[in-house]
Order: sequence, then structure tokens, then C-alpha cells
Amino acid sequence: MASKSANPVLVDVFRGDRTESSHRGAIAIADTRGRLVLALGDVETPVYPRSAIKALQALPLVESGAADAFDLSDEELAVACGSHCGDRVHLEAVASVLAKANLRERDLACGAHWPLSEATARELLRASRRPRAIHNNCSGKHAGMLATAVHLGFDPSGYETPDHPVQAMIARVLSETCGVTLGPGDMGTDGCSLPTYAMPLSKLAHGFARFGTGAGHSQDRALAAKRLMEACFAAPVLVAGEGRLDTKVLRGLRGAAFTKGGAEGVHCAALPELGFGLALKVDDGAKRGAERALVEVLAALLPKARSALSVEIDGEVRNWRGRRVGRLAAGDALKDALQSLADRPA
Amino acid sequence: MASKSANPVLVDVFRGDRTESSHRGAIAIADTRGRLVLALGDVETPVYPRSAIKALQALPLVESGAADAFDLSDEELAVACGSHCGDRVHLEAVASVLAKANLRERDLACGAHWPLSEATARELLRASRRPRAIHNNCSGKHAGMLATAVHLGFDPSGYETPDHPVQAMIARVLSETCGVTLGPGDMGTDGCSLPTYAMPLSKLAHGFARFGTGAGHSQDRALAAKRLMEACFAAPVLVAGEGRLDTKVLRGLRGAAFTKGGAEGVHCAALPELGFGLALKVDDGAKRGAERALVEVLAALLPKARSALSVEIDGEVRNWRGRRVGRLAAGDALKDALQSLADRPA
Repeated sequence: MASKSANPVLVDVFRGDRTESSHRGAIAIADTRGRLVLALGDVETPVYPRSAIKALQALPLVESGAADAFDLSDEELAVACGSHCGDRVHLEAVASVLAKANLRERDLACGAHWPLSEATARELLRASRRPRAIHNNCSGKHAGMLATAVHLGFDPSGYETPDHPVQAMIARVLSETCGVTLGPGDMGTDGCSLPTYAMPLSKLAHGFARFGTGAGHSQDRALAAKRLMEACFAAPVLVAGEGRLDTKVLRGLRGAAFTKGGAEGVHCAALPELGFGLALKVDDGAKRGAERALVEVLAALLPKARSALSVEIDGEVRNWRGRRVGRLAAGDALKDALQSLADRPA
Repeated sequence: MASKSANPVLVDVFRGDRTESSHRGAIAIADTRGRLVLALGDVETPVYPRSAIKALQALPLVESGAADAFDLSDEELAVACGSHCGDRVHLEAVASVLAKANLRERDLACGAHWPLSEATARELLRASRRPRAIHNNCSGKHAGMLATAVHLGFDPSGYETPDHPVQAMIARVLSETCGVTLGPGDMGTDGCSLPTYAMPLSKLAHGFARFGTGAGHSQDRALAAKRLMEACFAAPVLVAGEGRLDTKVLRGLRGAAFTKGGAEGVHCAALPELGFGLALKVDDGAKRGAERALVEVLAALLPKARSALSVEIDGEVRNWRGRRVGRLAAGDALKDALQSLADRPA
């Protein structure tokens, strides 16, 4: 609506000394009871979490017993929680999940796109081949859902549709974990053809606080969440890829921060040591804004993030000759909010 | 500043029936006297115009006599005004400008990036080669500046630095055309290493109204502007590339709309038949927002834009399997502003 007040600026993009562009958005940080430790901007209007909740969508893979039945490795569980760049290691893990469940690449309903991995794109181009569904960044999640269907004796065909029992299980897990009631009116279709359900950032943050700690979960769910998170910490490359932010965080802040980005500027995180969950969205959908805002929050809450993410904190913008021409920086509203958070009573 | 009021929403991105993301920004439309026909959002804070003003930066190439001396074709002038995608036709035109001025690819100071053209990227990858400076989308502009330097007897080395006589000429042309005073404090460094000078959208719009009509220009400048614009209408592919918006506009609205996009969500246009110039910037820098806002304005002002740009007006968002999952649409503030513009007294 035109009359709705704008979210605050989370991130500014400077060129020289001048702000060239800026990213507005909202951030929620919640504890395990759902109390908001930080609420910057509108954290109550539902947003599509997209790929930021792949770890929650993977809970039925473990809870159903499918992960045990197929003896899935950390790598295979991590790629099911990840948005991979299509490197060989990712393709092998996805292919292995499919093989263990007696499935084929053509069972994947995610559609194809060119892999982010330059090496893989180069290989495909050299061989005059087009990308396939397995190259889709979501193919690990899809393989996990297919394996869940097979294990439970459901016809895997149509596993991506909202009425399929696996998607119904996932919707129930999301409702329970985040404390929301989801209806058909909340559903959009994701880039990979799965349902994506709009939820308030406050609820997503609560869900990730519970995911990271197990608090408020059944014992089975708490164990499933722990297993998925530990798989991602053990195999961080499988969640994103070399040089990508989520992989750097999982590696550099192992045990302290589980983060996962999604399309259109969403990022979610569990901070198990603090007992917090986080969810943010940049209004305009820009990944650079969401990632920069996430890095600022991590640096404010976790002292070791300052060294683990020093390149990201510097936020340098370079031109095509490699010369520094600008930088990304926290907006004033985000700086103020993080200062208040740092000053909070322990 | 945190207290500055937000620009209005120009474009909404829907997924299903829900707004998933949105792009705020500002739009100025001016007549040849600089009177604002439309001023939506903050049109007075200076913004970097980036590549949206390549046609203005090319004026000295014609005014200096270099274009005549080197017998530059429409294709060669158009690529000097363009941000090309690195297709063969672009590389040949840039190479030809360099050859006519007795220059080489290594004289280009723009730096290298992978070309947007999949065909060219594929050729480079197959041959295990890296992209070169000629593949940079700005290489045509750089070749034009180099040719200007050679023609005028300046050492071409350092042509990209603000103190070089060719850049000083360009800064003077920008000042005169847009009616601004530019100082070192307004300068940032563009992605291709050239200076980019921040100017208010209102002034950029005025400059493009004059560029498109010749009004208020010296006879030489008016002729130079006409020649460049006609070259772009004659060779629209050279300005961007097949399937890209500026090429579609130049082809479909020949004579009626000269448009040129720049990085970080800037778009400028001359509408010669109406005597208007346009400049817009999306705050967050998103190309999809800037292009969609431009299309809305063109459709409101030029009836034939509705058929020439019907695909863009539909604004469909598809997922990886080609299914329609959302759409881009004008925000309420933009719709209202364009309605007021349509209702204005003739």
C-alpha cells in the first residue's frame, strides 16, 4: 500500500563518498520463546522465506526415518539443506541421494538453470551440453523430498505439489516450528516449483531459535534439527559452495551460527550459543543487501565473526580493473539498532 | 540520512497474489526549458548517471570532427553510445573504431568482464580463453574516447582519468547540456574506470530533452546529438544487443524514444516527438525496477509503446520450469503520477 511507512535503510552502497544505492528492509531476532530481542522495520507482514528455510523443509527427511534408512551422509544431508552452486561435489551428493532411494535425475521437478559454478558451466559449454535439473541450486532439497516420499511408500510423482503428502508434512513442520497457521492464501510458487509459504519475520526468527536449540520441540524433532545442523557444520561446502557466504559462516563460526540465504533478499539464521533465531528480508530482494545486513548482525552478536568475515565486513566495491571505487556499509538505522542490542542488559 | 523521507514505490514484484519485493525510486521528466512535467520522488539529490549518459559522453567524438575524420559508421557511433553484450557484431564495431584510429585493444582502459552474450561466453570458454577489455560492455565508449584523443593530437594514454583533456571536454559538455556545475566532489569512479559525475535527475532529464531536440544547443552540438541519436536508431542492436530493452525500444519506437540504461538502476531517455527528456533511478540499484518503471512511462506517453513493449508490459515472472509464478507491476505512486500526466492539459 502506498500509505505504508517505509522500512529503514539496512545497507548503503557508497561510490566515492556518496551513497549511490541503498537497501531497506526488516530484521527480527527472537529467543526460543518467541520474544523479540530485535525488531527493526516491519517484522509482522508475511514474507516468502524461499530457500532460507531449506533446513526446516528437510526436517521430515530425518524425522521420517528416511535419512537413516538410506544411510545419508553429512554431505547428503547438508546438500538437502543447501542452495548449491553446482560444483562436482554437489552433483555427486545429489546423485548419491537419488541412487540410494532408487530414483533418477528425471524425477527431479526443480527445472534446470545454469550452475553458478564457473567450472561446471565451463564443462557443460565445452561439451555443448545444457544444464539439467541436477544443476539447479535446489536439486539437493528436491532429492531429499523424493527420498522421503519413497521411504514412506508414497508415489514420488508430483512430490512438488502442495497436495502431495510430503509437502503436507513439510507445511505441518513449518507451522509447528514457527508457530503459524498456514493456509492456501499464504502460498506462492517458488522458482523450483515447490510451495513457499509467507510468514512474518518474527515467526521465522522464532522457528530458527527453536531449530538451533531444540527448545519447544518434540525430542524427535530436536534430534532431527541437531542432526541437520551438525551435518551442515561438518560439510559447509555442500550448503552453498566455495567462496559463498553461508559456507564461510558455517566454516568460520561453526556451532555458533547456522545461516541460510534465500531468493529475493531473505536470510535466516540460528545462533544456538545465544539461543536466538534471526530472519531478515531486504525489501527490494537484493542479495548484496541481505548478506551485508546479516554480516553486520553476526559481527555485533558474535565477536569471532569480525575475523571470520573480515572481507565481508570491509565490504569493498571494486571496478573491472580491481580498483576500489566504493563500499557497502550498515545504514544508520541498522547501526543504531545493533548498538542498542549490544547495550542490552545481559 | 535516516530522517530523509523515502522515495515512493515505483515497481512491485508479485509472487502469487502477494507483493514479494518492491523498488522505490524517483523519476523526472523535463521539457527543453527544464520545466518538470513530472517529478516523482526526490529528483534533486545528485545521482551517478553511470552508463545512462553514454550518448552525451560521445558528443565530443562527433563535435571534435573525429567521427568524420575516421569515417565512423552508424554501427560504430551506436556502439560508442552503447552498453553492449559482447556479441560478434559489437566486437567487430569496437575493433573497427580502434583500427581506424590506429589503436589496439590494449589501449582500452575499461578492464575485462565476462560478456553478457552467452554465445561469446561459450566461444571463450570452448577456447579456454578469458574475456578481454573489448568484451567489457563499455568498450565502445572507450574506443570513441580514444579516437577523440588521437584525432585531437592528445596522448591517448590516461584518457580515462579526470584530468585528461578528453575527460575535461566531456565534463564541460555534461555541464552545458544538463545545466549543472560539476566539481571534483561530484565525481565517482565508474565500473569501467571513467569518471562518473553525480547530477540531479531533474537536470539529467533537462539534458536529455535538449539532446533529443537540439533546443538550447549550439548548432554544432545539435547536429552532433542528432547524428548520434540517428545512428542509434539506425543500428539499435549495437546499443545493447538482441533481446535487451534499449535495443527493443530503439527498434520499436524509432524516432520517438531514445533510451539508455546504466548500472545501479539508472535510466535516461529522450522523447524527441514530445520534446521531453527523462531520468529515473531506482534507489536500490535494481535493473528490473528501472526497466519496468521506464516501460510504464513509455506506455503512458507513447501509445505505440503498448504494442512494441507488450512482453515487458505483461511483466511475467516465470520459474525454472517456465511456469508463471508472479509478475512485475507499477506501484500505486507511479500509477497515480502517470495518470496525472495523462490527464494534464495539452
